[in-house]
Amino acid sequence: MNTTTTDRTAPIGIFDSGVGGLTVLKEILELLPFENFVYFGDVGRTPYGGRSKEIITQFTKQDIAFLNEQKVKFIICACNTASSTALPDICKDYDIEIIGVIEPGAKAAVKQTQNGKIGVIGTNATINSNAYASYMHAIDPKLKVFSLACPLFVPLVEEGYIDKEATYLIARDYLQTMKDVGIDTLVLGCTHYPLLRNVITDIMGDSVRLIDSGEESANESFRRITTTELIHPNGSQVPSPEGDLKYFVSDVPEKFSSVASRFMGREINNIARVDISKY
Amino acid sequence: MNTTTTDRTAPIGIFDSGVGGLTVLKEILELLPFENFVYFGDVGRTPYGGRSKEIITQFTKQDIAFLNEQKVKFIICACNTASSTALPDICKDYDIEIIGVIEPGAKAAVKQTQNGKIGVIGTNATINSNAYASYMHAIDPKLKVFSLACPLFVPLVEEGYIDKEATYLIARDYLQTMKDVGIDTLVLGCTHYPLLRNVITDIMGDSVRLIDSGEESANESFRRITTTELIHPNGSQVPSPEGDLKYFVSDVPEKFSSVASRFMGREINNIARVDISKY
Repeated sequence: MNTTTTDRTAPIGIFDSGVGGLTVLKEILELLPFENFVYFGDVGRTPYGGRSKEIITQFTKQDIAFLNEQKVKFIICACNTASSTALPDICKDYDIEIIGVIEPGAKAAVKQTQNGKIGVIGTNATINSNAYASYMHAIDPKLKVFSLACPLFVPLVEEGYIDKEATYLIARDYLQTMKDVGIDTLVLGCTHYPLLRNVITDIMGDSVRLIDSGEESANESFRRITTTELIHPNGSQVPSPEGDLKYFVSDVPEKFSSVASRFMGREINNIARVDISKY
Repeated sequence: MNTTTTDRTAPIGIFDSGVGGLTVLKEILELLPFENFVYFGDVGRTPYGGRSKEIITQFTKQDIAFLNEQKVKFIICACNTASSTALPDICKDYDIEIIGVIEPGAKAAVKQTQNGKIGVIGTNATINSNAYASYMHAIDPKLKVFSLACPLFVPLVEEGYIDKEATYLIARDYLQTMKDVGIDTLVLGCTHYPLLRNVITDIMGDSVRLIDSGEESANESFRRITTTELIHPNGSQVPSPEGDLKYFVSDVPEKFSSVASRFMGREINNIARVDISKY
């Protein structure tokens, strides 16, 4: 990696299979408001979670190629599926630093657990990759890690089924095993899952600590950027001027615009479309 | 259209956004067992139902281009989303006959209704297109057509949530309006929905007739093929030899293989992968 020649005024790139990564963007914006950001949401090919490793890797490479064309200085892969299934094999192929959500989420969980029993929930691809468990075991081989795919959580969140009885029933089906084995820490291994925090807490009980891997990766990115030569020169100004935000999507921008405005709590109009299959 | 020069031994092409179209293939195989078939399932980009008209049209054109390269003699678009959102604008651009699922489903419903009140359920894109209602009104402008998107039905079916309490609760949420307005006929405007037939009948009652648009389009294709010069010469042999079946998908074949074997009730191994973004 060659950070010394990097243009520190260049934007930070964030990508996700869809809109979920906006929660990570929102977190990091609070920490680094003076940085410029480029967000790419692959809404034209979302969701990644049920696809094969091969195609997730192909999509992830295209997402990174697009951000590199935008001359970003640092990349955050906000998608758990891409972070777990594609990144470990491909991130060494790039000069630019790319951070995923697995390592920060796993680290936080290992730090948090007291009884050594950690649960991980995510999409089929994230769970099949075993990435969270592998990383946790690299830190401490004695940990007991229980991983479970919850494929209905994403569509339930996207349809606004947040506090409904049906969602509780489905969440109870999924999470009963996690209760039975007595985990004390549960990693929300998908950017959509924090929206079901209330349902999950009701089922698991207050004693189980929930880890939001998106939040953890925003914190980790903040640490890496502020401790390297990557930080924008405006960061040293008081008050620092606000950075630019650019949004790109792989389907028409209209639908993304309304969802993104809701996620970000501000009107978002400057969204451009990208034909991502060309990258 | 120029059917007189068509090679009658050429295969019939069927495509869908994923696996749902296999139900249509199964129906038509029983009617035309001596024909050759090529099935394409766009599992690498499924589902289509929540995407924009623009991208659904782009995907549909690529699906048709692939089948044309296979030199098919007739195309069945088994996907309701593609049939309603893309086909009406593009099918005139092709020499080959392309049949969608909307027209056959709409016709069957109009024939069936006695009180003139018809319900249509489907994906967001299918309902937004208003294709079923437009076609029904072209037949009889006095019909009252009530259209409703049920976006959670596809993931529920794909996760095997067929007879669960959560599925009943969600279906009741969706279908209550249809009960209130007193429809006597309900079009299942998505190839996944017939798998929820029991749940839907329990909620709507036995007096509401369900129309399976996939089944209707298989019947309609049978009529068109047998009444034109398209029928395979083997059809006149008794007993007629069985035709060939070829399967193509846009992600790795392994997962499709197990689902397809279940749908078709026979072991399916001859599945090839296609990079559909190149078409």
